Amino acid sequence: MNVGIVGSTGYGGVELHRLLSNHPNVDNCILYSSYLDGAPYAEQYPHLFDLSHEVVNPIRIEEMKQLDFVFLAVPSGVSKELSQKLLGEKAKVVDLSGDLRLKNPQEYEEWYKGESASSDTLQKAVYGLTECNRQSIQEAELIANPGCFPTATLLGLAPLFHHELVEPHSIIIDAKTGLSGAGRKATQSSHFSETQENLRIYKVHQHQHTPEIEQQLKEWNREAGPVTFTTHLIPMTRGIMATMYTELKSTYTTEQLHNIYQDYYEKHPFIRVRPVGQFPSTKEVFGTNFCDIAIKADPRTNRVTIVSVIDNLLKGAAGQAVQNMNLMLGLDETTGLYHYPIYP
Amino acid sequence: MNVGIVGSTGYGGVELHRLLSNHPNVDNCILYSSYLDGAPYAEQYPHLFDLSHEVVNPIRIEEMKQLDFVFLAVPSGVSKELSQKLLGEKAKVVDLSGDLRLKNPQEYEEWYKGESASSDTLQKAVYGLTECNRQSIQEAELIANPGCFPTATLLGLAPLFHHELVEPHSIIIDAKTGLSGAGRKATQSSHFSETQENLRIYKVHQHQHTPEIEQQLKEWNREAGPVTFTTHLIPMTRGIMATMYTELKSTYTTEQLHNIYQDYYEKHPFIRVRPVGQFPSTKEVFGTNFCDIAIKADPRTNRVTIVSVIDNLLKGAAGQAVQNMNLMLGLDETTGLYHYPIYP
Amino acid sequence: MNVGIVGSTGYGGVELHRLLSNHPNVDNCILYSSYLDGAPYAEQYPHLFDLSHEVVNPIRIEEMKQLDFVFLAVPSGVSKELSQKLLGEKAKVVDLSGDLRLKNPQEYEEWYKGESASSDTLQKAVYGLTECNRQSIQEAELIANPGCFPTATLLGLAPLFHHELVEPHSIIIDAKTGLSGAGRKATQSSHFSETQENLRIYKVHQHQHTPEIEQQLKEWNREAGPVTFTTHLIPMTRGIMATMYTELKSTYTTEQLHNIYQDYYEKHPFIRVRPVGQFPSTKEVFGTNFCDIAIKADPRTNRVTIVSVIDNLLKGAAGQAVQNMNLMLGLDETTGLYHYPIYP
Amino acid sequence: MNVGIVGSTGYGGVELHRLLSNHPNVDNCILYSSYLDGAPYAEQYPHLFDLSHEVVNPIRIEEMKQLDFVFLAVPSGVSKELSQKLLGEKAKVVDLSGDLRLKNPQEYEEWYKGESASSDTLQKAVYGLTECNRQSIQEAELIANPGCFPTATLLGLAPLFHHELVEPHSIIIDAKTGLSGAGRKATQSSHFSETQENLRIYKVHQHQHTPEIEQQLKEWNREAGPVTFTTHLIPMTRGIMATMYTELKSTYTTEQLHNIYQDYYEKHPFIRVRPVGQFPSTKEVFGTNFCDIAIKADPRTNRVTIVSVIDNLLKGAAGQAVQNMNLMLGLDETTGLYHYPIYP
Repeated sequence: MNVGIVGSTGYGGVELHRLLSNHPNVDNCILYSSYLDGAPYAEQYPHLFDLSHEVVNPIRIEEMKQLDFVFLAVPSGVSKELSQKLLGEKAKVVDLSGDLRLKNPQEYEEWYKGESASSDTLQKAVYGLTECNRQSIQEAELIANPGCFPTATLLGLAPLFHHELVEPHSIIIDAKTGLSGAGRKATQSSHFSETQENLRIYKVHQHQHTPEIEQQLKEWNREAGPVTFTTHLIPMTRGIMATMYTELKSTYTTEQLHNIYQDYYEKHPFIRVRPVGQFPSTKEVFGTNFCDIAIKADPRTNRVTIVSVIDNLLKGAAGQAVQNMNLMLGLDETTGLYHYPIYP
Repeated sequence: MNVGIVGSTGYGGVELHRLLSNHPNVDNCILYSSYLDGAPYAEQYPHLFDLSHEVVNPIRIEEMKQLDFVFLAVPSGVSKELSQKLLGEKAKVVDLSGDLRLKNPQEYEEWYKGESASSDTLQKAVYGLTECNRQSIQEAELIANPGCFPTATLLGLAPLFHHELVEPHSIIIDAKTGLSGAGRKATQSSHFSETQENLRIYKVHQHQHTPEIEQQLKEWNREAGPVTFTTHLIPMTRGIMATMYTELKSTYTTEQLHNIYQDYYEKHPFIRVRPVGQFPSTKEVFGTNFCDIAIKADPRTNRVTIVSVIDNLLKGAAGQAVQNMNLMLGLDETTGLYHYPIYP
Repeated sequence: MNVGIVGSTGYGGVELHRLLSNHPNVDNCILYSSYLDGAPYAEQYPHLFDLSHEVVNPIRIEEMKQLDFVFLAVPSGVSKELSQKLLGEKAKVVDLSGDLRLKNPQEYEEWYKGESASSDTLQKAVYGLTECNRQSIQEAELIANPGCFPTATLLGLAPLFHHELVEPHSIIIDAKTGLSGAGRKATQSSHFSETQENLRIYKVHQHQHTPEIEQQLKEWNREAGPVTFTTHLIPMTRGIMATMYTELKSTYTTEQLHNIYQDYYEKHPFIRVRPVGQFPSTKEVFGTNFCDIAIKADPRTNRVTIVSVIDNLLKGAAGQAVQNMNLMLGLDETTGLYHYPIYP
Repeated sequence: MNVGIVGSTGYGGVELHRLLSNHPNVDNCILYSSYLDGAPYAEQYPHLFDLSHEVVNPIRIEEMKQLDFVFLAVPSGVSKELSQKLLGEKAKVVDLSGDLRLKNPQEYEEWYKGESASSDTLQKAVYGLTECNRQSIQEAELIANPGCFPTATLLGLAPLFHHELVEPHSIIIDAKTGLSGAGRKATQSSHFSETQENLRIYKVHQHQHTPEIEQQLKEWNREAGPVTFTTHLIPMTRGIMATMYTELKSTYTTEQLHNIYQDYYEKHPFIRVRPVGQFPSTKEVFGTNFCDIAIKADPRTNRVTIVSVIDNLLKGAAGQAVQNMNLMLGLDETTGLYHYPIYP
C-alpha cells in the first residue's frame, strides 16, 4: 500500500511518518511539502538519520490521486483545497486540519477567519472521533480528523451525554496543552526562554476548537448550550489534559458514574477508564494512542469533574488519523498503533 | 529589630530569609528548625555561601518570645503549638501554616485530619489577606497567613463578590501550581523524572484550601455556596495560576468588569489589573509579590473567566507574610518587597 | 520463554518490562522486588493500567533458577549475591548493576566502598559492551551489563583505540546525564525544584564508572593512562552525552576519522556515525537503543572531539541488556529493540 | 544621570533595564531600538506592566552623545558603527557585543565573518573583565564587555595563569549554557519542543568566543596555546557552567590550589571561591552577578578540573556591564548589583 503524507515536515507529519513506517500494511510512505523539493527528509529531522531514506516532494496532485491513502497534515486554509481535489479519486483521505470539521460554513468563517471548504467536500467528510463514530468512519472516503482539544474533551463527555446525565448548558472545559500542539514554526511564544518555568493562558473564549466541541455536543443533545472553553500552555512538549466541570441532573455517586464510563468504553481498546480515586497524568499516555479518563462526583456541589488526557500528537492527531485509516481499510483499529507509554 | 524564622530550612523559610536579610528595618534574622542544632544555614543552602553567616538553632520558645517578630513557617499541625505559646508575648507572629486559617474547628479537623488549634489562638488570629483585610491586620498581634491557592483565588474574586455581580453558588476554580508549593521534602511526586514533561491533577475535591476559600467567600456573601476547586501540578518550580469560572447575575461587558477591578484595586500596589485583552502568565510575576489579574466576560454563556497569577513563594507565602509584618509594624507595605520580575 | 526481572520497580526494571512485554520471543515476564509481595505492578506504574496484569513477587531464588532468563536490575551490592546464587543454573543472567564489571576486586572495593563479588562470579561474567564483545557475549551465561556512562564513552573511543590513533594518556571525558540515571528513589538531589533550571556537576574525579572505563581502555591498549572523568546532571529525564577530548598521535582530518568510524561500525545496527559536520543531540535517540557518534579533528590543537549520545535507560541499561539477551539466545540482536526515536 | 540602552528589546536590554531602574545613581533610562519607534516598552515585556512607562525610541545618535552613559546591547556587526560614532563624546560607553573584544582585526574577520571595527575604536576599547582589569576600566571611556563564555572561563583560569601553575597548551573548556544566551529571536533551535528534554552540542571548535579567550590567556602568558572550546545547549533559560581541564606543571593538592584562588579573589565581592569539596551549580547564582568557582586536583592524572558558573544575563552580560559602569563612574562596584540568588 502506498500512502502519502502531505505536510510531512511538521510535527503531525513526522509522527505520521513514524507510525506508518512501522505499520505492517503500509509499503511506501511518499512525503510531500509545499516548500521543499527533493530534499532528504532526514535533513529536516536528523533523528531519522539512517532510518528514513525518503525525500520530500513538492505537492503533486495527480500522483497523490493514485495513492491508496493520503494524510493531509497541512494548516487549516491550505488543506481544504487539497481535499477538494482528491474527492472521488482512488485515494482515501484523512484531513488533520480544521477545514472539514465544522459543518456550518458560517461558523468556520467566524472562528477560522477564512472561507469555508466547498459544500460537497463538507458533506463527504465524516467526523473522525473514532470511538463515537466507528461505523460512518468505516464507510467513509474522507475523514475530518478531530482537533486535539475536542478529542480529549468529547471522549471525556460522551458517556454523560449519551446517558443525559448532565445539564446541557453547564459545560466548562479548562484545557492544558504542551507546546508541540502549536506546531514546529518558530514564534515568540514557542521560544524556550518564554515558555520554560511559565504557565500561560491563551485565546480565552476564542479558541477555534470551541465550535467543534459544541457541534458534536449538540449532535448528542440538541439542548447543549455554548461551552466555556479555555486553553493553557504548559511547559512541556507533549500532552493534553482537559479538566471538565458540569452539573449533574440528579445525584450520582462516583462509583455509579465510573460504571457508566466503563460500560460505555468497554470495547474500545484505546480508552482507559481509570479506577475510582485514580486520576491520569499526561505522561502516562506519552507516546501512545490512549485516552485515559477519570470521573469524580462532588456531593457538596452536585457537580462532576472529568479528567481526560491524551498525547496531542497521537490520539490528538497522527494516532487517531491512523486509527481511522485502519477502520477505513477494514483492519483492526489497533494495527501498528498499540504501544506502551514511554515512562519515565 | 530582631526577627525569628521558625522552619527556616523549608522553601518558605529560605524566601523569608532572603526578604528579611534585605529588609531595611530588620537588624537580625534568628533561624530555627526542629531538626538542626547549630549547623550553618549555608550548609542547607549553598547558594547562600558567603551571604548567610547564621546558624540554624533548635526551637527555643523563651528566646522567641523576646523577639520583635516571629514567622512560623513550619507544617500545619506543628505550628499551632508554637503560636499558642507565643500568644500575648512581646513577639508579634505571622503563621504561614494552615493551622489558624479556619475559624471552625470542625472544618479544620475534617480537612486537615488533625486537632484544631485552641479557640483563644483562633480568636486572636487575623486572616492576612492583605488587600482585603488591611485594617485588622494593622492592629493584629497574630496573623494567619493565607494559603497560596486561596490568595490567588480570593484576590481574583473579591471585586465580583464585593459588588455582588455573580451567582454565589457558581464558583469553579481550576488551579495550577509549580512544584515548590509542595515543599522541599523529597517525595515520589516531587521527583524530577516523574514531574518533567508531565501534568498531574491531585486532591480532586479534597484540597485543604477549599474550606479556606469558602470561609472567606461566605464572609463576603452569606449565600456563597460550596466551590469546585481542583489543583494541578505544572512542571515548573514557582508560580500559581487560578483560572476561575462563574455565572454573572446580569450582563456585563469585559470593559465594565475591568473598570470595576481597576477601581477596587486602585490603591493596592501589589495588584496589577491587566488591560482588557491581556492575560498574565506566571513568569511575569516570578520573584515578586505581585498578583496579576485579568477578567473576561463571555456573552455567549453569560459566564466570566477570571485569571489570577502569583509567585507561590512570595505573594503566596513569604512575600505576603512580610507585607503583613510591614503593616503590623506601621511601615509602608512595600518596604523591602517591591521588585521587578526576573525575566526571562 | 519465561523471563524474570529482579528489581522490577526501578526505572531500569520498568524499561525492561516494556521491552520484554513486546519481545516476540518472550512469553512471560515474572517480576520480583525485594520490598513488594504480591502487589499489582500497575500500582507502582499507573501508566501500565490495563497493560500489565502482573504482580510483583518477593525474591524467590529457587523459582528464578528455573527461568530461561533473568535480568538483575537491583542496586550494586545487592546484585552480587543474586548472581552468585544463579551461577550454573538453567537461567542465563544479565546483571545491570556495577557488581560484576570490575575484574579487580580491589578496584571494586575502592570505588564502590563495599565487598567485591566472589572470584568465580567475576570470572564467569562477560562484559556486555555488545558492539565490542559480541562473540564472548554469544557464549556467555552471565553478563556484566556496562554502565550508562561507560557505554557512551567506550563506544565513542573504540575506533580510536582500535587503530591506536590517540595518545593513550590524554583521555578527558565530560559526561552529562538526565535525572533518570539516578534511579527512582526520591532524594534531595532528584527533587524537581532543585533540578529544574539548574546544572550541576557531581562526583568530580570520584565516579564509580571511572575504573570501568579505564579497565576496558587498558584492555584495548595496555598503555592507556588514567582518564579524567566528570559527570553533570542535566535538567531532563533521559539521555546521556559524553563529550570526549584527546590528543591525536599524528595529524588526521575529520574526514579520515569519520571514515574510520564508519568502517568500524559498519555492521552494527545500533551505532549511527553521523556525517561530517553533523552532531547528535540526546533527543535524537530518545526511546531507542541507538548510540549516535560524531567526531571532529581540530587542526589548531591537534586534538579531536568525540561526541556520543545514548538514551541512558535503553542503550545505557535495559536496551543493551535485551540486546545481549538476544545474542545469548542466538536471536538477531535487534529483535524487539529497533524503534524510531520519539520526536519531538 | 541619564543612561541610554540601545537594543533594549533583547534579553540583555531588558536585564539592563531592570538593573538600571533600581540603580540609585541612575535617574532616567532612555530606551532605543532599531526597529521600534515610540512603542511602549511594556508592550514588548508585559511583566513590566505598571513598572515601566518608557517608550522605545529609534536610534538617535545626537541625543545619545549627550547622555551620561550608553549601553550598546545590539548584535555584533551593528554595534561597531554606534560605538565609533559615540567615540570622544560626553557619553561613556559599554559595548556588550563582540565587536570590540578582539584587538586583531584579522581574527575578528575570521571568527565573526564580517569587517572589524575601526582601529581607533579598537584602541580605545578596554576589555571589561572587571576582576582582572579594574584599573584600566576605571579610566576607560569605552568598554568591550566580555562574552558570557569568556567571563566564566577566564575567571576560572586567571589564578592558575597568574601563578603559572599549568601547562599553557593544555586548556580544554567544556562549556554549557541556557537558552537565553542565544537571544530573544525565535529560531528553530530556540523552539521549546526542540530544546526541552534535549542536550545539544553546537559550533564545535568554531565558537566566536574562542579567540577572545585565547587573546586574554596569551596576554597572561605568551606561551598560551590554542584552546579546545566546545559549547552545549542545556534545557534551561539562564546559567553558564564552564568545566575546564588542564595539566598541572607540578604537583599541587586541592587545598593548595584552593588557597591560591581564595587569595587571588579575596577582594572581589562577586567571586565566590567554594570550599574544598563543594562545587557550584548554576541555580546557585541565578539572578545575581556572582561567579562561583571550585577547583579540584586529580593526583591520578596530574590534571586539575575547574568549575565556574555564572548567570549569563548578569555576570555574563548586563551585570558585568553595570559593574563596569560603576567603576567608570567612581562608584562602589556593587552599587545596585548585590542580590541574593532566587532559590529555588
